Amino acid sequence: MNGRLFEKLDRSFEDMVIIRRHLHMHPELSFQEEKTAQYIHDFYTDLGVDVQTGVGGNGVVARIKGARPGKTVALRADFDALPIQDEKDVPYKSTVPGVMHACGHDGHTAALLQLAKAIHEMQEDLAGEYVFIHQHAEEYAPGGAISMIEDGCLEGVDAIFGTHLWSGTPLRTIEYLTGPVMAAADRFEITIQGAGGHGASPHQTKDAVVIGAQLVINLQQLVSRRVNPIESAVLSVGSFIADNAFNVIADSAKLGGTVRSFNPEIRDLMEREMKRVVEGTAITHDCEIKFDYFRGYPAVVNHKAETEFLKEVAEQIPGVDAVIESKPHMGGEDFAYYLEKVPGTFFFTGAQPATPYPHHHPKFDFDEQAMLLAAKTLGAAALDYQTV
Amino acid sequence: MNGRLFEKLDRSFEDMVIIRRHLHMHPELSFQEEKTAQYIHDFYTDLGVDVQTGVGGNGVVARIKGARPGKTVALRADFDALPIQDEKDVPYKSTVPGVMHACGHDGHTAALLQLAKAIHEMQEDLAGEYVFIHQHAEEYAPGGAISMIEDGCLEGVDAIFGTHLWSGTPLRTIEYLTGPVMAAADRFEITIQGAGGHGASPHQTKDAVVIGAQLVINLQQLVSRRVNPIESAVLSVGSFIADNAFNVIADSAKLGGTVRSFNPEIRDLMEREMKRVVEGTAITHDCEIKFDYFRGYPAVVNHKAETEFLKEVAEQIPGVDAVIESKPHMGGEDFAYYLEKVPGTFFFTGAQPATPYPHHHPKFDFDEQAMLLAAKTLGAAALDYQTV
Amino acid sequence: MNGRLFEKLDRSFEDMVIIRRHLHMHPELSFQEEKTAQYIHDFYTDLGVDVQTGVGGNGVVARIKGARPGKTVALRADFDALPIQDEKDVPYKSTVPGVMHACGHDGHTAALLQLAKAIHEMQEDLAGEYVFIHQHAEEYAPGGAISMIEDGCLEGVDAIFGTHLWSGTPLRTIEYLTGPVMAAADRFEITIQGAGGHGASPHQTKDAVVIGAQLVINLQQLVSRRVNPIESAVLSVGSFIADNAFNVIADSAKLGGTVRSFNPEIRDLMEREMKRVVEGTAITHDCEIKFDYFRGYPAVVNHKAETEFLKEVAEQIPGVDAVIESKPHMGGEDFAYYLEKVPGTFFFTGAQPATPYPHHHPKFDFDEQAMLLAAKTLGAAALDYQTV
Amino acid sequence: MNGRLFEKLDRSFEDMVIIRRHLHMHPELSFQEEKTAQYIHDFYTDLGVDVQTGVGGNGVVARIKGARPGKTVALRADFDALPIQDEKDVPYKSTVPGVMHACGHDGHTAALLQLAKAIHEMQEDLAGEYVFIHQHAEEYAPGGAISMIEDGCLEGVDAIFGTHLWSGTPLRTIEYLTGPVMAAADRFEITIQGAGGHGASPHQTKDAVVIGAQLVINLQQLVSRRVNPIESAVLSVGSFIADNAFNVIADSAKLGGTVRSFNPEIRDLMEREMKRVVEGTAITHDCEIKFDYFRGYPAVVNHKAETEFLKEVAEQIPGVDAVIESKPHMGGEDFAYYLEKVPGTFFFTGAQPATPYPHHHPKFDFDEQAMLLAAKTLGAAALDYQTV
Repeated sequence: MNGRLFEKLDRSFEDMVIIRRHLHMHPELSFQEEKTAQYIHDFYTDLGVDVQTGVGGNGVVARIKGARPGKTVALRADFDALPIQDEKDVPYKSTVPGVMHACGHDGHTAALLQLAKAIHEMQEDLAGEYVFIHQHAEEYAPGGAISMIEDGCLEGVDAIFGTHLWSGTPLRTIEYLTGPVMAAADRFEITIQGAGGHGASPHQTKDAVVIGAQLVINLQQLVSRRVNPIESAVLSVGSFIADNAFNVIADSAKLGGTVRSFNPEIRDLMEREMKRVVEGTAITHDCEIKFDYFRGYPAVVNHKAETEFLKEVAEQIPGVDAVIESKPHMGGEDFAYYLEKVPGTFFFTGAQPATPYPHHHPKFDFDEQAMLLAAKTLGAAALDYQTV
Repeated sequence: MNGRLFEKLDRSFEDMVIIRRHLHMHPELSFQEEKTAQYIHDFYTDLGVDVQTGVGGNGVVARIKGARPGKTVALRADFDALPIQDEKDVPYKSTVPGVMHACGHDGHTAALLQLAKAIHEMQEDLAGEYVFIHQHAEEYAPGGAISMIEDGCLEGVDAIFGTHLWSGTPLRTIEYLTGPVMAAADRFEITIQGAGGHGASPHQTKDAVVIGAQLVINLQQLVSRRVNPIESAVLSVGSFIADNAFNVIADSAKLGGTVRSFNPEIRDLMEREMKRVVEGTAITHDCEIKFDYFRGYPAVVNHKAETEFLKEVAEQIPGVDAVIESKPHMGGEDFAYYLEKVPGTFFFTGAQPATPYPHHHPKFDFDEQAMLLAAKTLGAAALDYQTV
Repeated sequence: MNGRLFEKLDRSFEDMVIIRRHLHMHPELSFQEEKTAQYIHDFYTDLGVDVQTGVGGNGVVARIKGARPGKTVALRADFDALPIQDEKDVPYKSTVPGVMHACGHDGHTAALLQLAKAIHEMQEDLAGEYVFIHQHAEEYAPGGAISMIEDGCLEGVDAIFGTHLWSGTPLRTIEYLTGPVMAAADRFEITIQGAGGHGASPHQTKDAVVIGAQLVINLQQLVSRRVNPIESAVLSVGSFIADNAFNVIADSAKLGGTVRSFNPEIRDLMEREMKRVVEGTAITHDCEIKFDYFRGYPAVVNHKAETEFLKEVAEQIPGVDAVIESKPHMGGEDFAYYLEKVPGTFFFTGAQPATPYPHHHPKFDFDEQAMLLAAKTLGAAALDYQTV
Repeated sequence: MNGRLFEKLDRSFEDMVIIRRHLHMHPELSFQEEKTAQYIHDFYTDLGVDVQTGVGGNGVVARIKGARPGKTVALRADFDALPIQDEKDVPYKSTVPGVMHACGHDGHTAALLQLAKAIHEMQEDLAGEYVFIHQHAEEYAPGGAISMIEDGCLEGVDAIFGTHLWSGTPLRTIEYLTGPVMAAADRFEITIQGAGGHGASPHQTKDAVVIGAQLVINLQQLVSRRVNPIESAVLSVGSFIADNAFNVIADSAKLGGTVRSFNPEIRDLMEREMKRVVEGTAITHDCEIKFDYFRGYPAVVNHKAETEFLKEVAEQIPGVDAVIESKPHMGGEDFAYYLEKVPGTFFFTGAQPATPYPHHHPKFDFDEQAMLLAAKTLGAAALDYQTV
């Protein structure tokens, strides 16, 4: 059965590339992906497949039932782009100024659409049901997954699989990992309200630059002293803004940053400890400090059985040379929410081009052959899961 | 003699107010004071007094010779305004958006012009020579004094006197001080060049926010540990700018600030020690830090004999209730340069209005009666100096 | 075969306890374990087993050959004690003031001796060779392992197994882990040479307390900023000594501490970065800082095949209720050196008593039943390894 | 009159040296000066002067009345020594191990005794009354002055004068200063109660070394940010003790230090702000910090009229070449208490030897000629004060 699927996918590769490049030239920001959603809708309608749009926002869900009863397997691809100016010099460069598919979601979508077409053609010979989840807004919290789930996209689903094309991993390599594979990604904002004044009269002020500096230092001590060294945590203050004349002492300073973790206890610890450090620093410097902590996506925690299953499936895919254990990534993904509801796994498909740039880089691109391997792995996982 | 002078000045008070309010409504920024210079020029020309414009820039100098030989005494008033939006609700509010006489230089000029008029009228009965230095650009380094001196404004001058109307000191009070009375005011700029990256991957970056924070802390230790506690020094970092997305680690950060001191050795020490702290911090964090230190005005150091003389003069001015020793101010003044060349003193004339705001505040104003007391004190000092 | 072994061990339990308590009452510090070595020697001699003393110091090695050829399996127990005053109230309390078996090495030794006795009795029916490594000086770097290896204790050895009785893990539980299981444990000493002086004259000094404080803060930033968050590292400054009169500024300060890591690259990174932070801090504060970094034991890295083998063996031991994956420990162990030479694994045997105290605590003790389970697991591993 | 006094003193110089050297060889610690007090008592008794011992402790007071009525003038010399081992190589080296006159109090006492003798001899020709205050315990708070005052030593006194022989000031120089001349000298003790543990497990601890380091840094920011830059303040942490094994995280740390100031408002500010910084730091690090602040002597504030008087007196002393304005010293002196009760001044008498060492140094010594100049200046001040 997989053999037929792989043949169909091989034959669809040119179409996959056409779709991917079309999407690449017409990227849309998170929560604004109307044309992309319409494009996906039209694709399924043209196939004659029932498709639901407006799922939890711009989400699109198509369901294809096999001829026989069986398990319901969901496959997910995200389709939003990023606020980055495309700086590649290629024919399929973004046509939208300041917006770019700099993370490979165009490739995820192209692969899933052609996989849906192939499965649709094999419908009569298949058991079970296949749910194609085209998710909007992965790049921007609160993300699209949570509202698509609320809107029913996981109804009846027994397992879910998803992949990320990865520009840093060699082509023909699949990376899997049981347990936490991507981090919980939270955001914080801190506003220090000191008391400004003349640069020559510090004693009449509460110097928001010194207070902010001390707070940055204090916060760094959380990771080194409060987190179990065999756990992972990151606390980065990304911005520090106190914009004044040189001879003025800052009245206020704004800090912003991110916290990453895998273990929910560490996540709680970091939020709780930050609150305490902020409170203590405010007392030390006799000022007001406003602290807001915004929880982003939780950690993506892969299920053990589905991950081991996926590993075995991947080892059978023609063209895949290496199936290796991944290291956890500190980046975030709202695939996390699906895995809180149903079993499944999220894996990485090597997509390293000749000259690789990191994800979110203005010159980011990937080797399009990876789409084919992603489609085959997801497809084989869906079909094989019937017999687990 | 002083009695006649005081009578003349009393009668001129209404004109003084008219001039002051005219200037207040038409403020000009430092180095752009063309209309103000023209106004001063026209005043002297109307009196029939020889006047020189374009002295070291927009400076204006008038010289009035008495009938008999004697000492040459210079009196100085500055006339530039500040980039501040006038927020007072008065009929003479600034008509120039974003520009304001928020430091009292309009009052200095009005007082000196009417004093010149009075002295001109008494010319026949006077000994010596009187030099009226109307200085542009006091507010912005390198200031107007240095170029006016280069252009000859102190030629033949035996002593110089200047005053500042002071909104924080009660009306009818004169404040004097021997030795350092206003601070050397320097500026610095620091650019930290770290290495940016994703907020989740600190180990691949050199976090410019943490480096900047540590540098701010290190610099604070200079005043508390390296400066003799019986000396004065201030080091304030006024701005700290690292403006990034919350999930990005800062590539660079820009810091700016000011250093104040009275003693030239302390000034040298601060610059030298800052350089070393910057160098050490760069090594600690394995990054590049660019450090620029710009010397502003030196400290205003009043001469002992002239200050004691001025104190005695002030005690004889009708309307002056208190002549008290001032505390040093950490603010800067380019009157410093005159005192490096000739003896003299710079004093404060109390000008506190009903509701006082600090100098440089958008609602700054002063009690106009202070102009009259300033004119009388400067005038009496000039006349009495003939007999010293 | 294992059944017979287990029966013999069950019957030997009382003797095991007698041996353990004897050793507990007569502890000897690392590198001074002469009587303990003699005791072990005598035990083997009494059995009629060839035993070698003075191996790499106070080490003792006994070898028992089975009747048939086979693999050579080493089992290791350490036997040194700690400079801690025993504060337990038990009949077998240490009789040596200030010296105590506060880490369970007495239990390791008792278990291994009785296991050797049992294997000796079964000699005729066994294949292969069994090497009983009684190691001195585990608690104090450079440790006994390295010199015992140099002295040939691993000659011909195909695999090695060792265990630690663990007071924090419930009885009847065996903990295993592939890969790094105990950390590389390094030590550092830092001497800050400032310039002392009167507490009232900081400007004439280089304040070693402030410099030391700043260095502690700077060092904390290494773990939070320079180490990959999915790796583990610890840097703890344990001592900070600047002992002066209250009104004196410290001339010097001495800091000491430890660095822990699993990954050799992280270990190198930490040493290298510490050196740089020390250098930068010395420049920042214009002083001398002496930095010495002493490498202790490397990380204990368990071999995959032997760990999985041990896990399966443990699951068959009667009385063992749970065989679970351990978390890595940040403590150090010179078992690391054996695993650099031959395959093997180091596991934990749950030994939690009714009122558990941490290892190295003056009231440390363990449930003696754990010795029996340790002996059975080591013994079964040795015998089963013949058939791998 | 002064001429006769000076002659007498010149003739007494050899005796002065003998007394000084006797005291130097037999130093006694603060509050333990029994033999020294007896020595002073015996001197006055031998003269036939009424003398009171046990004044406020070991204090000794002699009063000599002139033949005519007049003002009552007190002169004060302190007589305690320091816990320092004398390292000089001179015949009059201290004979008491670990105790030494390393601050010149032996010289103060010798000078005052011989001055008393001279005045006693001139008694018939003098007006007024002369009070010789020999004060114990100047070196150790709460000092002897406060209890001697309570015990009546200032009764009827119109003015008081005191001097300090100063090894850093050239011989033949007298230094005077109106206003604050020596600082308020306070002491503080801080105990950080964290939670200790293994160096490898920071997350289970509250690291008292990191907390202490952060506290030291936070405290440094008080002087640089909270104190008016034209005021003086010092905060020095002199000791930091956390003495642990290298692989242990500190359970507690003890810090001690001193605060110096001239202005009572700054003194209050420092104590108040330290309390707040300690409180905030405890919250930041979730630990207990005990903070004790002990007020030492207040600032020595010289009275204006008596200082100007003393200056004029000094300018008339034969052998005094220079009478100059002193800079304030950050050291403390309990002469402060006398000046809170009666007018007076405390001045410095230059006593620099060939190879000068700072006060409190194990090799401290002074040029004994200075005693004579001190005696003459004090004596002339006492006599001349009758005519003020």
